[in-house]
Amino acid sequence: MANPAKYDVLGIGNAIVDVIAPVEDTFLTEQDITKASMTLIDEDRAQSLYDAFPPASETSGGSAANTIAGLASLGARTAYFGKVADDTLGKTFSHDLRATGASFDTSPLVNGPGTARCLIAVTPDAQRSMSTYLGASSLFGIGDLDEAVIQDAAITYMEGYLFDKDEAKEAFIHAAEIAAAAGRKTALTLSDLFCVDRHRPSFLHLVRGHIDILFANEAELLALYETDDFDRALDQVRHDCAFAAVTRSEKGSVLISADETALIQAKPIEKIVDTTGAGDLYAAGVLYGLSRELPLAECGRLGSVVAAEIISHYGARARKNLQQLCGLSDNG
Amino acid sequence: MANPAKYDVLGIGNAIVDVIAPVEDTFLTEQDITKASMTLIDEDRAQSLYDAFPPASETSGGSAANTIAGLASLGARTAYFGKVADDTLGKTFSHDLRATGASFDTSPLVNGPGTARCLIAVTPDAQRSMSTYLGASSLFGIGDLDEAVIQDAAITYMEGYLFDKDEAKEAFIHAAEIAAAAGRKTALTLSDLFCVDRHRPSFLHLVRGHIDILFANEAELLALYETDDFDRALDQVRHDCAFAAVTRSEKGSVLISADETALIQAKPIEKIVDTTGAGDLYAAGVLYGLSRELPLAECGRLGSVVAAEIISHYGARARKNLQQLCGLSDNG
Repeated sequence: MANPAKYDVLGIGNAIVDVIAPVEDTFLTEQDITKASMTLIDEDRAQSLYDAFPPASETSGGSAANTIAGLASLGARTAYFGKVADDTLGKTFSHDLRATGASFDTSPLVNGPGTARCLIAVTPDAQRSMSTYLGASSLFGIGDLDEAVIQDAAITYMEGYLFDKDEAKEAFIHAAEIAAAAGRKTALTLSDLFCVDRHRPSFLHLVRGHIDILFANEAELLALYETDDFDRALDQVRHDCAFAAVTRSEKGSVLISADETALIQAKPIEKIVDTTGAGDLYAAGVLYGLSRELPLAECGRLGSVVAAEIISHYGARARKNLQQLCGLSDNG
Repeated sequence: MANPAKYDVLGIGNAIVDVIAPVEDTFLTEQDITKASMTLIDEDRAQSLYDAFPPASETSGGSAANTIAGLASLGARTAYFGKVADDTLGKTFSHDLRATGASFDTSPLVNGPGTARCLIAVTPDAQRSMSTYLGASSLFGIGDLDEAVIQDAAITYMEGYLFDKDEAKEAFIHAAEIAAAAGRKTALTLSDLFCVDRHRPSFLHLVRGHIDILFANEAELLALYETDDFDRALDQVRHDCAFAAVTRSEKGSVLISADETALIQAKPIEKIVDTTGAGDLYAAGVLYGLSRELPLAECGRLGSVVAAEIISHYGARARKNLQQLCGLSDNG
C-alpha cells in the first residue's frame, strides 16, 4: 500500500502558449489548415502563419497543463512536468501555471529552440483548428522526470500529443513504471485522432501495459482499436484499462469501469464561443472525481460542468473558480 | 485646402501589451491598487505584482492603439506611432496592430527597457484597475514623429496617458503644429482623472492652443476645468474646441460642436464582463463618424455600439467585425 500522496494529480505534457484568434472559414482554406484538428508545424511555418494571423491574444495552454490548471481550480493538489525555453513565453507559461497553485519545476531549456506555441484559429462555429510549433517542448525526455514527484502523485496523467517524439514515449513508459512501482495510478489522454493514427502500435503498447485510466473522444477510441463499432471499442478498452472516459461532443460522455457504465449528458450551454480545452477540462473534472473516489456518474457530471465553462469563452484556462462552480467544499 | 488624406486617423500613444486577469476585490486591497484607475509602476513593482498576479492572458492594448484597431475594424484607413522594444512583447504588439491593417513603422527601441505592459485586474463588477510599466514606451519623443504621415492624416489623435513624460508633451505640440500647418485636424483624449490632475496646465495649454476634437469622461472634464458643474465644463470645452465628446458611463454620452449638442444613450448590454477599452472604442466609433462627416448623433451612436461590444468580453480589442456590427457599407 502506497503512502498518502502529496499530489492528487501530476500532469506531463507539452508546455505551450496559445495564440488564439477569431477567423473566417476562408482563412483555414487559404492557409491550408485542417479544421478542428492539431497539426505540427516547424518554426518557419509558425512565423509565416503568424504573419498571416489576425490580431490575437495569448494564453497559456498545453493539453495536460490545461487539465492541471482546472484541477487546481477544483481544489486538487497538483504538479506538472513540461519543457519551456528560458524566454518570455516560457516565463508566461510558468507564471500562469504556478499561479494556479501547481508545483512546476522542470528546468527551462537554455540555448535551444523557443517555448512552444500553438496558433489557434477559432471559426464562427466555435471549432478550434490548431497549428503547433513544439520548439523547446519537443526536447522533453527522461531526464526531465522527477522520480520523487511521480512517487508522490496519486495519479500521473500524460498527454498523447507528446507521443510525436521518441524521447517522450520513452519518458512516458519510464514514468508509468515509476508510478506502478510506487503503487500509484497512471492516466493517459489519446489527444488527437491523427496522433493516434501516427502512433497506434506505441499507444496500444502503452495503454495495454501501463495505463489505468484512459481518456479519449469517440473518434480517437475507434481509431485506436481500428473499428467503427463504438460498443466493440468500449469492450476492448474495458479489457485494457481499469477505467475509461470517452467524450462524444454534444452527445455527452460514457464512463466505464470493470463492472459499471455511466452515460453522462452534455451540459447545455447558452452559446459556445470556443471549444479549445473542452477535452482537457472534462478530464480535469473526471480526474478530480476519481481522486476523491466519487461515484462514476459524479465524476462524469464534474467533467461535463467544467467543460461547459471552458467552451463559453476564449482560451483553455478557466475564468471562474471551478470549486464554487461545481458546488464542492474546500476539502473536496 | 489640404490634399485628400491618405489616412483617416493617425493615433499616437503608449504601445502596451495588456496582461489581464480576473481578481477578487481583496486582491486590490492586498496589492494596494487604486480601483478603476491607471497607476504608473516601475520595473521592480511590475515584476513583484506579476508574481502575485493570478493566471492571466495577454492582449495588445494601449489606449490610442485600441482606438486605431477599432477604427480599422470599422473600415477606416489608419496609422499609428508608439514605441515598443525589440523584444517578444514588442513583436506581439506590432503584429496585432499591423494585422488590423494599420500602418505602424515607429522603430523599436534597442538596448533599453522592455516593451510596456499593463497589469489589468478585473473585479467581478467588471471594473478594470490598471498598473502600467511604461518601459520603452516612455522613450517616445519628437524623433519618432514621421512628418509625412501626420501631413497625410485627416485627424491626428493623441492619448493623454503619454503626457506623463516631457518628451512626449513636446512631441504632441510638435505633431499638432505639423497637422495644423497641413490643414489637418487634431484630437486628444484626456485618458485619466489623475493624469489630468498631474498635468492640468499642460493639458489646458494643449487643448486651448492645439486641439480640435476632445474626448473625455465626465470626471476628467470636471478635473480639467476645476469645476463640479457639468454644464459649466461643457460651456468651457465648447469655447476651447470645435468638437467634444464626453462619456458618462451608464448615463451615455454628450457630443457638442459650436452650435449643436447631441445626447446619446448608452447601448444596454446583457452582461458587462470587462470595461477595459470602453473609452478607447467609444472614441473609435466617434472618430469614424467624424471622418465620414456623419451627423453628431450618428457619431455618438457608433461610439456607443462599439463600446458595448468591447465591454461584453475580456480585452480591449474588438472580436467582431465592427463594420458589420454597425451596419456600415464597405465604403463607409
